[in-house]
Amino acid sequence: MKVGILNVTGYAGVELARILSRHPQVEIVAATGRSDAGKPLGQVFPHLESLGLNVVPEITESVDLVFSALPHQASAEACVPFLEQGVKVVDISADFRLKSATAYQEWYDIPHPYPQYLEEVVYGLTELHRPEIGGASLVANPGCYPTSALLALAPAVQAGIVEPSFIVDSKSGVSGAGRGLKLSTHFSEVNESVSAYSIEGHFHLPEMLQELRAMDSQARLTFVPHLVPMTRGILSTCYATVKEGALPAGAQGNQELATIYHDFYREHPFVRLAQAPPATKHTLGNNQCLVYPVLGSQARQLVVISCLDNLVKGAAGQAVQNMNVMCGLPEEQGLEALALYP
Amino acid sequence: MKVGILNVTGYAGVELARILSRHPQVEIVAATGRSDAGKPLGQVFPHLESLGLNVVPEITESVDLVFSALPHQASAEACVPFLEQGVKVVDISADFRLKSATAYQEWYDIPHPYPQYLEEVVYGLTELHRPEIGGASLVANPGCYPTSALLALAPAVQAGIVEPSFIVDSKSGVSGAGRGLKLSTHFSEVNESVSAYSIEGHFHLPEMLQELRAMDSQARLTFVPHLVPMTRGILSTCYATVKEGALPAGAQGNQELATIYHDFYREHPFVRLAQAPPATKHTLGNNQCLVYPVLGSQARQLVVISCLDNLVKGAAGQAVQNMNVMCGLPEEQGLEALALYP
Amino acid sequence: MKVGILNVTGYAGVELARILSRHPQVEIVAATGRSDAGKPLGQVFPHLESLGLNVVPEITESVDLVFSALPHQASAEACVPFLEQGVKVVDISADFRLKSATAYQEWYDIPHPYPQYLEEVVYGLTELHRPEIGGASLVANPGCYPTSALLALAPAVQAGIVEPSFIVDSKSGVSGAGRGLKLSTHFSEVNESVSAYSIEGHFHLPEMLQELRAMDSQARLTFVPHLVPMTRGILSTCYATVKEGALPAGAQGNQELATIYHDFYREHPFVRLAQAPPATKHTLGNNQCLVYPVLGSQARQLVVISCLDNLVKGAAGQAVQNMNVMCGLPEEQGLEALALYP
Amino acid sequence: MKVGILNVTGYAGVELARILSRHPQVEIVAATGRSDAGKPLGQVFPHLESLGLNVVPEITESVDLVFSALPHQASAEACVPFLEQGVKVVDISADFRLKSATAYQEWYDIPHPYPQYLEEVVYGLTELHRPEIGGASLVANPGCYPTSALLALAPAVQAGIVEPSFIVDSKSGVSGAGRGLKLSTHFSEVNESVSAYSIEGHFHLPEMLQELRAMDSQARLTFVPHLVPMTRGILSTCYATVKEGALPAGAQGNQELATIYHDFYREHPFVRLAQAPPATKHTLGNNQCLVYPVLGSQARQLVVISCLDNLVKGAAGQAVQNMNVMCGLPEEQGLEALALYP
Repeated sequence: MKVGILNVTGYAGVELARILSRHPQVEIVAATGRSDAGKPLGQVFPHLESLGLNVVPEITESVDLVFSALPHQASAEACVPFLEQGVKVVDISADFRLKSATAYQEWYDIPHPYPQYLEEVVYGLTELHRPEIGGASLVANPGCYPTSALLALAPAVQAGIVEPSFIVDSKSGVSGAGRGLKLSTHFSEVNESVSAYSIEGHFHLPEMLQELRAMDSQARLTFVPHLVPMTRGILSTCYATVKEGALPAGAQGNQELATIYHDFYREHPFVRLAQAPPATKHTLGNNQCLVYPVLGSQARQLVVISCLDNLVKGAAGQAVQNMNVMCGLPEEQGLEALALYP
Repeated sequence: MKVGILNVTGYAGVELARILSRHPQVEIVAATGRSDAGKPLGQVFPHLESLGLNVVPEITESVDLVFSALPHQASAEACVPFLEQGVKVVDISADFRLKSATAYQEWYDIPHPYPQYLEEVVYGLTELHRPEIGGASLVANPGCYPTSALLALAPAVQAGIVEPSFIVDSKSGVSGAGRGLKLSTHFSEVNESVSAYSIEGHFHLPEMLQELRAMDSQARLTFVPHLVPMTRGILSTCYATVKEGALPAGAQGNQELATIYHDFYREHPFVRLAQAPPATKHTLGNNQCLVYPVLGSQARQLVVISCLDNLVKGAAGQAVQNMNVMCGLPEEQGLEALALYP
Repeated sequence: MKVGILNVTGYAGVELARILSRHPQVEIVAATGRSDAGKPLGQVFPHLESLGLNVVPEITESVDLVFSALPHQASAEACVPFLEQGVKVVDISADFRLKSATAYQEWYDIPHPYPQYLEEVVYGLTELHRPEIGGASLVANPGCYPTSALLALAPAVQAGIVEPSFIVDSKSGVSGAGRGLKLSTHFSEVNESVSAYSIEGHFHLPEMLQELRAMDSQARLTFVPHLVPMTRGILSTCYATVKEGALPAGAQGNQELATIYHDFYREHPFVRLAQAPPATKHTLGNNQCLVYPVLGSQARQLVVISCLDNLVKGAAGQAVQNMNVMCGLPEEQGLEALALYP
Repeated sequence: MKVGILNVTGYAGVELARILSRHPQVEIVAATGRSDAGKPLGQVFPHLESLGLNVVPEITESVDLVFSALPHQASAEACVPFLEQGVKVVDISADFRLKSATAYQEWYDIPHPYPQYLEEVVYGLTELHRPEIGGASLVANPGCYPTSALLALAPAVQAGIVEPSFIVDSKSGVSGAGRGLKLSTHFSEVNESVSAYSIEGHFHLPEMLQELRAMDSQARLTFVPHLVPMTRGILSTCYATVKEGALPAGAQGNQELATIYHDFYREHPFVRLAQAPPATKHTLGNNQCLVYPVLGSQARQLVVISCLDNLVKGAAGQAVQNMNVMCGLPEEQGLEALALYP
């Protein structure tokens, strides 16, 4: 099938190009960029020289599916014309993640440009919405933090074993902040340092809440993202309180917990339950999310740790996974690469 | 005054040597090591060559105060003879931190070697116990994680504004794991990776609980330490629930919170309230702990972030601070260095 | 074809497993380890869990080819029995790289265990010895530094345009030092630091000299390796003096130089001439070597920079490339992955 | 004495503030900035909050000496008015380093703004020009690369034991590129990567050549700077050919070499001869340059390695050292801090 990439020159876009170039069913027929339009892709990204692509200002070729890695607002505006022509769209931006146009306006300070699509769009966390994604024309690819938090918490929430107040403490590599220049991603500022940010409300928070509330309408959430000095990877440590009597204490509780998680992810190839606390390094460059649920040292405390590569399962890899499901391809196709270690 | 350092060749010991060498009232008269005994210190640590010290097998000189940076058990055994001779001791090991010999046995799997000293020893978190430290002969220097967590939580706990269930999510640089070789501190394993460890119960947990319970006897704690790919620094993100009605919501609540913290640390030169989420880099190489309390996005959620250099305020710097207080010297003496940035 | 891996638990071995697991013509039938023998491979390396392999003490299955990632001496001893049974061998250790048993003894302080194989073994720098590798039973996979230096210098040396005195200044990531624990690879020691080592003579020096002398019998070499704080990658900056009159100065000289290099590597898919100074990041996880030759600012100074991933083109990837050539498979098979960026 | 800092908000400026704040003879009376003018310094740099300084648009106070950390051209223009008022100036920019106005124009593409000062300015590599610095009003603080290269090579060049063709292969941390935002200093681009740059001619090259030619008029130089993924530190590996017969081979040659270097630096407290290949970590945050000269494995090859902290001995520390010498203060005053390790 023929696909196009909108904004190949950001980190999600360039990762899409890398992954799709090895997908046996896909031909990248066009990849757009803004400031780099007109250049060979290999000049901007030497590691992609062998693809022989050029960065173009817009997609003029006929395509079956478009990935958008544009910033929000610009993304919706660029995607809708394709939808109207019957081209499937996976939108990696935040534009279609929130079902509520009101919430969108509240968080992004602009009216939603195309609220009429909010009904039909499917939130593309494949493990939670695979059936709907199968029939979708427009999939909103989840944020990297929500992917890590929701895959960690969903089994416990759906099983009804936890109180609806959650804490998600996430540690992210710097590539999650994108390729745009900022002092907060300047090497000498971020190297050898850890810091929290957006404590007052990160824009991934409403997205997490929306999905948690779809499982438990009482859900409340405290989300504190942190920047750690590495390029790729997110580790989220998620905290919840086990409902009184929902799980026995100690080893037996941990065993019942493991069973709940195993059952939940039995049919999902990209979530793997870890046998020991996982490291983000175990997912470098591949599409897996590792999940490690455990009862904490404090009575009735549930701790769930998840790890993933923010640019793969947290962005481009999940987008390809969604494409596979949307187009009836094997879910793992093109996503078989193992993690790069060490 | 004349001081000795037991086990100068670990990271806490070598940092003690660095700090003490600039202290105007201190002369390092002996520094011991085990495998490196007999070598010039500058051969083991080129940056200390100018001190002209040798690593010796034991302290034979007359000293006024001894710092021990030995591992637990060995430390108690080495310290007690000095105490018996009337030499003051700051023990950086864990041997005298727990007041309960039973708890010690439970966590360290050996009977406490000198339980008779548990009555008199003072827990050396200077900001909590300065008056007792002033008169002490034996001070147990706190662990790096407990220092960061307790300085973050103490004002709220003592003010009685929070429920007694705490979560401490800490992110530590790798030097906290010491200079001993382990796969988990091998560069290629830990670089570009974040992971949690000791979720089932880190040995710093009982120490935190002991101090929290001294302030609120109902205190419970979930503590999850993480390793991040940097050399120095700890950032602890601490979570608690504000008691119903204890603080107004929103900006006014944050203001009352700030007042509680300012009042608490008014007389403490080494704790500074940050105006924005702090970064560990802001404390590199200096003895400050930055504390940032804020109400989270979820109702009644308190989030307190603290940053420090695990080898300075989390180990050697705090040990010197304790020495200063024990010996009637100005608390900041020798500890004036600003953080190294960037 | 069926292959075995001797010592899968070092970094070269584990990388072999990762690469081979995606090779369409290869089945890994056995992978040995020493201290981890008996464990599932996924327990030692979580990212390889899906392979379903176990670490075994020795290869008892029938195999077509064996890769050895054992240390020197142990490697020769383990490889020879396979050779005697007609099994092809790619030896990643240094045991068969030097053609001279005398040089081996001089550098490794032991007599060569199997000097009778030194006649037939082929030095597996595929770009220099592809025809001989095609018919070989035993291939000595080059060291990571020699691969980077020789690919940088060979075109100029073979073209006869440079004086025979070479300087190779190499910068390597830490994984090149292996998975064994050493203070020099302890995170806190090597992070945020650069240092040179083995200036008096690194054991990769004779291997480089042997190959350079095969092209110019007068070759002399100064080789200074450096450790830089990253996991993977080698960048070698190679210096030589252009023979009087061999190249015009300035832009025209650079153009003639580019032609020499392009012609040399025209048929070699894994060496690519860079258009600008390359970065090791451009080769992360893939099998390419980027080469950038340029005339320096000083008259008649040639500077050639090369970049590669020390565990791929510098070890496991090149071993698979050699296997492909030895077994008549397409040279690029299984090695198509693009670099992981950023 | 009262000093002012022009452009305190770059990395050299902020490091000056850090160092000077601990100098017993210095009071910082004003520190300027451009975009941050009007803010408290502690708001821009939390680690300097305790200094109680504000960033001002210009220095209006009476001062004895001014440090300029402005970019070139702007620096000369800001410094000259102070010189005309009899205020001493240490210029950290490149404006007064080259004695030749023609060379300045060639490298910076603008006419030198104040060529009349090129006669009197002293090149502030203290170890080479201490006597002239003693009487100077205007000192041009050397670049970080030239400092490392010249301290490595000067003893050999002055002793006349090497041929006049030099190679300097330098590896620098990223802070040397400044605080301005560039893709080449964006964390995700530079982390886990090594690259060379400015091979065609870095603007520090003429400065090195000028000083080398002052010692040997035939000096020629190839200089290749590299960026390595760390914040601070420069390691330069310098290559030269020993003149025929100038030194015996082997151990005796190394001994004579050591003597030459020891004699050269006997009276210079900030250059230390290392006993083993030094690491940049050994100089983190302090003003020393470690030098390690050794005969290479190739006949008559001299290799000299030097390490320093590019922001201390390579910028702000050396500036303070120059101030001390200019003002008759002890050369080491305010610069006593030992390196931060690990």
